[in-house]
Amino acid sequence: MGSSRAGYEIPPGAGINTGRKHEPLPLSELLNSRFWEYKMHFGESYLQAATMLQPVGGMDAIAKAFEQRVGRLIRYKAEVTEIKQNSDGVQVIYRDRKSNQYQSVDGKFAICTIPLSVLTNIKADFSKEHQAAITVGASSYNRAVKVGFQSKRRFWEEDYNIYGGISWTEADIIQMWYPSTGFHNPQGIIVGAYIWSNDISKRWEAMTFNQRLSLAISQGEKIHPGYNQEVSVANGCTVAWGKVPYSQGAWISWEQDSRKKAYQVLNEPEGNVYFAGDYMSYLSGWQEGAILSAHKIVNDITTRVQNS
Amino acid sequence: MGSSRAGYEIPPGAGINTGRKHEPLPLSELLNSRFWEYKMHFGESYLQAATMLQPVGGMDAIAKAFEQRVGRLIRYKAEVTEIKQNSDGVQVIYRDRKSNQYQSVDGKFAICTIPLSVLTNIKADFSKEHQAAITVGASSYNRAVKVGFQSKRRFWEEDYNIYGGISWTEADIIQMWYPSTGFHNPQGIIVGAYIWSNDISKRWEAMTFNQRLSLAISQGEKIHPGYNQEVSVANGCTVAWGKVPYSQGAWISWEQDSRKKAYQVLNEPEGNVYFAGDYMSYLSGWQEGAILSAHKIVNDITTRVQNS
Repeated sequence: MGSSRAGYEIPPGAGINTGRKHEPLPLSELLNSRFWEYKMHFGESYLQAATMLQPVGGMDAIAKAFEQRVGRLIRYKAEVTEIKQNSDGVQVIYRDRKSNQYQSVDGKFAICTIPLSVLTNIKADFSKEHQAAITVGASSYNRAVKVGFQSKRRFWEEDYNIYGGISWTEADIIQMWYPSTGFHNPQGIIVGAYIWSNDISKRWEAMTFNQRLSLAISQGEKIHPGYNQEVSVANGCTVAWGKVPYSQGAWISWEQDSRKKAYQVLNEPEGNVYFAGDYMSYLSGWQEGAILSAHKIVNDITTRVQNS
Repeated sequence: MGSSRAGYEIPPGAGINTGRKHEPLPLSELLNSRFWEYKMHFGESYLQAATMLQPVGGMDAIAKAFEQRVGRLIRYKAEVTEIKQNSDGVQVIYRDRKSNQYQSVDGKFAICTIPLSVLTNIKADFSKEHQAAITVGASSYNRAVKVGFQSKRRFWEEDYNIYGGISWTEADIIQMWYPSTGFHNPQGIIVGAYIWSNDISKRWEAMTFNQRLSLAISQGEKIHPGYNQEVSVANGCTVAWGKVPYSQGAWISWEQDSRKKAYQVLNEPEGNVYFAGDYMSYLSGWQEGAILSAHKIVNDITTRVQNS
């Protein structure tokens, strides 16, 4: 009979309407599916579990709030080209992308939060050991690709009673995400692909934006027939973080081995240069990891100065 | 080692802080606990599962919205004392609690939404079969008891990182519910007991309000040491639906057997009297059931009139 966990084909109602449960899937089909491997309990995992809070206005709101408070300390459009150390401390040389002039900042210490994928191509007089660790880290990035559409209507709510959550697919698009806010608004944004497999990402990176959007539509069509009437290339957008110049990857995925070696090396400062960011935490890929790492390095430097 | 599903004693963080998972419970302890029986997946069950929407202002807002639209049709403070049928239709006699006078309403049909627990004590010229079904229903009510406190501070958030959800206990209070909104407000309401076992409810019904509140505090203290500093009898409230005059119970729990017999009898009109309400649906205890039942009965009567 199955339980009501999978929901009802006909919802239970008034009078003699006991409802009709969805036909249970055969056990063999469940076992042959890869869904149970982790997708079944994905939403219960440590980094995904409820209660999940979202900043009003999107995740960017957190970065924008920092900018509001410390923006006067930021040098914008400064592309770091070299990091040098001398007896006085650290010199960071950068190209001012407004004037195209090279300039520099000197300081006793530097906290480097440049992603390792970018840092690996920046000249630096780091030790061989640190440089090697950066190279390992640079090659460990997940090159996530996303596709999003503004849909004409919230067909997932109107037609399927889907209010938030994820559809998992075995196509390239891997996942479709439904918005968890704005229920019953006339329109909505649907995530049409969230790819975190580098093999697929590399194929998608090679496509034009329109090719990616078209492919996402045709693959999504298999999940939601009629999808191609709801979304279009014209109202889609896509990001491949592997191709974003100052990211060159979405987040680092330290392997167990590199956690033991490269990560531990970068966890120690290179002279007066400290490495900080989500990649220097056990919450890599999350703003929380970046903030905790910043706190840690500020403490490390404070302790060092106080003890010197 | 256990997984991260149970969370961390020390959350994973920056640098070499890998975090420390909660010590896994021994299998024997898990098997001996009754938690796994249904509490583990309670939040995934059909009637409790996400996405759960709440009316702004509380569940009452739905009833209030009905009142706003059809309030002019409602006779307030009318306590039904008798239901009679004659060749013209139905006569409902009621006591006007403002004037204390008996009055009546005549109609072709009556839709009776009085809980069976109350209806069983109202004079009516129903058939023996219907009267017997009402008696069965009346004895099938869950006499739920609730206790709530306005807490001085949201200690569950501040001290335990609890954001919504339920703590299950083996004490009388059964459950503590934490608010799912207003995170980080200075104060909050906590449900200190939600009893849905009639054995316990009957004991709690016999207590004074202050006795219930005191007992809820001392039992909650075992879950959250220091609880008695956060809540008090003075800022608590309690309801035992079994003692509420026009409810005499919280919701009906049809047994499988009574669903087959009594429920089926009441599903047919008694002459021109139709029975409607959450108890005449497979969503008993829920407003949704009451609304679906109302729709059904309106359709039934419409069909009958059109075919007559």
